[in-house]
Amino acid sequence: MAKTGLVVSAHSADFVWRAGGSIALHAEQGVAMTVVCLSYGERGESAKLWRQAGMTLEKVKAERQKEAEAAAKALGVADIQFWDLGDYPITLNNDSLFRLVDLYRKIHPAFVLTHSREDPYNRDHPEVNLFALHARITAQAHGHKPGEKVIGAPPVFLFEPHQPEQCRWMPNVLLDITDVWGKKRKAIECMAGQEHLWEYYTRVAEQRGAQAARNSDKKITYGEAYEAVFPHVVETLVPSEGRR
Amino acid sequence: MAKTGLVVSAHSADFVWRAGGSIALHAEQGVAMTVVCLSYGERGESAKLWRQAGMTLEKVKAERQKEAEAAAKALGVADIQFWDLGDYPITLNNDSLFRLVDLYRKIHPAFVLTHSREDPYNRDHPEVNLFALHARITAQAHGHKPGEKVIGAPPVFLFEPHQPEQCRWMPNVLLDITDVWGKKRKAIECMAGQEHLWEYYTRVAEQRGAQAARNSDKKITYGEAYEAVFPHVVETLVPSEGRR
Amino acid sequence: MAKTGLVVSAHSADFVWRAGGSIALHAEQGVAMTVVCLSYGERGESAKLWRQAGMTLEKVKAERQKEAEAAAKALGVADIQFWDLGDYPITLNNDSLFRLVDLYRKIHPAFVLTHSREDPYNRDHPEVNLFALHARITAQAHGHKPGEKVIGAPPVFLFEPHQPEQCRWMPNVLLDITDVWGKKRKAIECMAGQEHLWEYYTRVAEQRGAQAARNSDKKITYGEAYEAVFPHVVETLVPSEGRR
Amino acid sequence: MAKTGLVVSAHSADFVWRAGGSIALHAEQGVAMTVVCLSYGERGESAKLWRQAGMTLEKVKAERQKEAEAAAKALGVADIQFWDLGDYPITLNNDSLFRLVDLYRKIHPAFVLTHSREDPYNRDHPEVNLFALHARITAQAHGHKPGEKVIGAPPVFLFEPHQPEQCRWMPNVLLDITDVWGKKRKAIECMAGQEHLWEYYTRVAEQRGAQAARNSDKKITYGEAYEAVFPHVVETLVPSEGRR
Amino acid sequence: MAKTGLVVSAHSADFVWRAGGSIALHAEQGVAMTVVCLSYGERGESAKLWRQAGMTLEKVKAERQKEAEAAAKALGVADIQFWDLGDYPITLNNDSLFRLVDLYRKIHPAFVLTHSREDPYNRDHPEVNLFALHARITAQAHGHKPGEKVIGAPPVFLFEPHQPEQCRWMPNVLLDITDVWGKKRKAIECMAGQEHLWEYYTRVAEQRGAQAARNSDKKITYGEAYEAVFPHVVETLVPSEGRR
Amino acid sequence: MAKTGLVVSAHSADFVWRAGGSIALHAEQGVAMTVVCLSYGERGESAKLWRQAGMTLEKVKAERQKEAEAAAKALGVADIQFWDLGDYPITLNNDSLFRLVDLYRKIHPAFVLTHSREDPYNRDHPEVNLFALHARITAQAHGHKPGEKVIGAPPVFLFEPHQPEQCRWMPNVLLDITDVWGKKRKAIECMAGQEHLWEYYTRVAEQRGAQAARNSDKKITYGEAYEAVFPHVVETLVPSEGRR
Repeated sequence: MAKTGLVVSAHSADFVWRAGGSIALHAEQGVAMTVVCLSYGERGESAKLWRQAGMTLEKVKAERQKEAEAAAKALGVADIQFWDLGDYPITLNNDSLFRLVDLYRKIHPAFVLTHSREDPYNRDHPEVNLFALHARITAQAHGHKPGEKVIGAPPVFLFEPHQPEQCRWMPNVLLDITDVWGKKRKAIECMAGQEHLWEYYTRVAEQRGAQAARNSDKKITYGEAYEAVFPHVVETLVPSEGRR
Repeated sequence: MAKTGLVVSAHSADFVWRAGGSIALHAEQGVAMTVVCLSYGERGESAKLWRQAGMTLEKVKAERQKEAEAAAKALGVADIQFWDLGDYPITLNNDSLFRLVDLYRKIHPAFVLTHSREDPYNRDHPEVNLFALHARITAQAHGHKPGEKVIGAPPVFLFEPHQPEQCRWMPNVLLDITDVWGKKRKAIECMAGQEHLWEYYTRVAEQRGAQAARNSDKKITYGEAYEAVFPHVVETLVPSEGRR
Repeated sequence: MAKTGLVVSAHSADFVWRAGGSIALHAEQGVAMTVVCLSYGERGESAKLWRQAGMTLEKVKAERQKEAEAAAKALGVADIQFWDLGDYPITLNNDSLFRLVDLYRKIHPAFVLTHSREDPYNRDHPEVNLFALHARITAQAHGHKPGEKVIGAPPVFLFEPHQPEQCRWMPNVLLDITDVWGKKRKAIECMAGQEHLWEYYTRVAEQRGAQAARNSDKKITYGEAYEAVFPHVVETLVPSEGRR
Repeated sequence: MAKTGLVVSAHSADFVWRAGGSIALHAEQGVAMTVVCLSYGERGESAKLWRQAGMTLEKVKAERQKEAEAAAKALGVADIQFWDLGDYPITLNNDSLFRLVDLYRKIHPAFVLTHSREDPYNRDHPEVNLFALHARITAQAHGHKPGEKVIGAPPVFLFEPHQPEQCRWMPNVLLDITDVWGKKRKAIECMAGQEHLWEYYTRVAEQRGAQAARNSDKKITYGEAYEAVFPHVVETLVPSEGRR
Repeated sequence: MAKTGLVVSAHSADFVWRAGGSIALHAEQGVAMTVVCLSYGERGESAKLWRQAGMTLEKVKAERQKEAEAAAKALGVADIQFWDLGDYPITLNNDSLFRLVDLYRKIHPAFVLTHSREDPYNRDHPEVNLFALHARITAQAHGHKPGEKVIGAPPVFLFEPHQPEQCRWMPNVLLDITDVWGKKRKAIECMAGQEHLWEYYTRVAEQRGAQAARNSDKKITYGEAYEAVFPHVVETLVPSEGRR
Repeated sequence: MAKTGLVVSAHSADFVWRAGGSIALHAEQGVAMTVVCLSYGERGESAKLWRQAGMTLEKVKAERQKEAEAAAKALGVADIQFWDLGDYPITLNNDSLFRLVDLYRKIHPAFVLTHSREDPYNRDHPEVNLFALHARITAQAHGHKPGEKVIGAPPVFLFEPHQPEQCRWMPNVLLDITDVWGKKRKAIECMAGQEHLWEYYTRVAEQRGAQAARNSDKKITYGEAYEAVFPHVVETLVPSEGRR
């Protein structure tokens, strides 16, 4: 059975900027990637749409969903879900928690991607961090829906936030996304409503790529950075061979 | 050509307690492990020997070297070197720095193990941390002995100190040493002068093993913990398959 | 149009101890200062009143409001509001959040003052920190009451808590309040119910003043310290000329 | 009147692993120890019970209560209470808060023990940390049930979590539990449902004992570690005489 | 008399990448900028030159000086000094310390720029951080060359290191360098020996510019980020008016 | 035999401002207090003396020694030593290290007081922190002057620096010095050369006293704060009875 990966995204574009390379790369590696967009970011992250005449909340959501679906397709996402839980503030409760627990148990992800612990520029992101970790813990509980197969201990990697140092986020994993950069850029360009971020996140990828090269002695052009929540459990300290 | 690993140990027993499992495991993986004992710990880490009548500095050193050589043999160390630079305090200068640079360039290690950044219980350990990192940086410099092949960017992992939290050391890598535990325990038992630490470090291995199991969903009994100085540069976020 | 400043105070006396100098100084500079007292601190910060016979919650609130209004007048506050949301614990929900968002959008503050991120001595203070930041973020969202003018990015400065180090609060801004110290002291003396704090916060002002002098080579006697949440965006690194 | 101590335990076994030595020691010193088990850990910490055929939530709770009562007896607990507030997630609200405030005011504890501030492996533990601190603060408020005697400022010590460094928990108090180790081990063995943890927490006690010895020059075999939330207020810096 | 600014640069190119915008901007504001290049970076930061046939240490230094002088000219530096103290490792002693003290006292800088406190990729940079701060402290000492005018308390801002998070460097000042970006880019292009960094530091400027815009509600395209060592002593919390 | 305490002071006045209460209190408790003034602070901390005509380094030192001796007498110091190692920068080498080791071994201190780990305002203070800890470690080494009695593990408490938060110093011990405040104030007044600090450090004592009261429910007016380097090894968590 194919491995799976789970991306828990506060708003419907976050998975693109922050994890697009990782999604495309693992999809190419044969990992079935599931993306949960908890909200559309319809209130707080759709400024450009709101500048159009006659805009309504429903139109913004529809437009955001269309963009996210196009991006997901470009990245090779296996399943994208829109939970429409509102934004600014997002509303997370036990119902949505148990829904996410069900998903964890359904796909048994090999790894999980979600938001950073802190973000003074965004209240929903740290809420989703706690929520995604909380669901993972609950999915490990034998007494939750007894009889179901509990999940193991999938590693969790935290997305790079928009202004990393201000979020006290520390990158300790750099992923080489050089081979899939074309796909990520294509997905980024699906985000018509946030065109001002295209170049910003292209430069992020270039900077993290240069840093990955410097930290590895490999030839890497584009990278994505993550903070691992849990220690890496490894069987060797010798770095993998890679593109030199 | 075989890969190599470099262990920079302040005193002649540190590599056993702190990295014995890693050394044995990589030796079994075919990695040629070089251990540099910068000093014997003859003044500060040989209390039991000093309680013997007629003890001298030279006798302590000889005894410590004998113990370390026996432990190195048990672990499968390819090369162990004793630089006799004194302890409490250790004396590190440009001569010893360039000697270590030469070694880096001779073996081009795939990874490096050394001490933690801080330790209020031990002054030599943080000095050696800076020293080992400094030599690595100098070995990367093209203008140091121009014409020699500079080294790349081997990852550096910091040993678990005796009282981890007090040293503000954070384990972000857990190495499964279950298969080589017998060798590490045998090496530990070569340290006749510090028998009071045998059980202490056996328990450390058991605790880190239990934590590695919890963090990985694998069956792991003995572990070693490290703090990686640099970010991991990886090609996938999917954890490796392991002993389940 | 005059600039405005917004102070979000958990209890009705906090703005006096923690920001009285800043309020008086900016009022003198022509900034219209709005103070929101989310609660009266009627349960947790009115010990002296409760020692009086026949005291009731309503009497405490009335007394606290009277004190706060007198202090506000002494400081030159343009607008003081009492939202009566309860204390120990304070009750903050989406209604109060959107009310604060409305206020942000009404006055478009040039800067915001509120509580520290942590406080093991006080649960309401960190709750209000999150609340004030959250409202600021929501007031920036184009999809919140579309058509209204969203706010920009006013800097947020965190009050000095009662025991600064225990709250992991780090002062990175020192404000010279020497010229308005008389007003702050007068406002402090309006707080009849907490007379034991008068000298405490006078000494705080003297210590921060001495530190401001040492950090600036200026003649400063009284200061207030703040932790800026966001980076300072500046057009020069040359310090302003000041009282020497 | 005898002194009292309060232990606020998220799940019904936490007080055994994390504070059993402290409870037994203070009970021997004549301190009446009250343990509040906010939940049974019936869903998330009873894996072994759930593997039995025909298990139900009620049976798990009954079994867990029986185990906890036996352990409490072994440790000399004066009062153990089961509040049955659910787990994974625990449900904490103003009702349970005020109930805990009542308990604080009833026993006026000389010290309080509870969970760490963070724990990426467990969502209930940090929730309980905030809850126990919050209740302490509210119990200090003169306006909460005016006329009752408010509590003073009992120190709060945070339990050692399962994976200490990952929880950013810092041990700054080491308690010598050598004399009561037999009782703690007996209490541990009451936890039939979590036998896999017996040796883990025995080794924790041995490691903390060895560290306590090294930090004190005393003969100590078993220890418990805590992080003090508040500064120690002392009348001398000379360490107490102890077992040498 | 014109104000002055002091830049203490470990190697002869650091001031360009890390502070070029600040230098050009202040030069335009009429501040006389002095740059001290403690070494040429001849061993550790001149890889491209060393790949040329027949290269010698003296030739590298000459080439590096030429590049730095050209860059300094492009930026409007008032005085650039080359102290030739060696690199990898740099040699800093009391002679060089007192020389820098003399310079502080000669120019009485309004502000100082230098390297970050930590850098696991570079040993010279943190050494220079300590050195520059140490000289500042000594220049404040009345008993050092009594009779000379001591300096006041110029703020010190730390350069952005190459991999910011790994250096635990925290940007709390963002400087708008949009108007002088052309000069900085021209200075960068003088660094023929490190062409691989041109785009890297252009992207750094673009990212910091975008962040400065987001933190200020101003129109900013290029920025430089700094960590202020000392608190800002200010006379108002109202942000300056700027380019909107 | 009487217990002893050791104070390692960078400059000859530091022990008064930072530890005068502790010294007086323990002297009254019968502890023989030894104070080592490593330098006079003749260059960097004697501004007022240098403003006098005809001042020389020797005169400053003589004056500073006279002041320190008077203060020591007021505090009940058993032994004060002046090592005259220079200041700004202080010169610490193996000779002075071994001299301090000898002193540790001679008096076997029950506790040690010295400077904070960091201080951006003072380079000598952190140097002395490392030096005092280093000497303690060396005095524990059996191989240093074998045959001498090694010291145990005396706790080390770090002085409150002038600007605590900027030094990342965290007070976790508050000492009640109310009963000896008169002596500390008298000692402070011996420091004629630094009269501008008298009120500053009086207010520090009042603030720490107020905080000690709040943290303990005792009546405390004056306090001194310390950061303990090592964990407290305790035999009970019940706070000691004190002045209520």
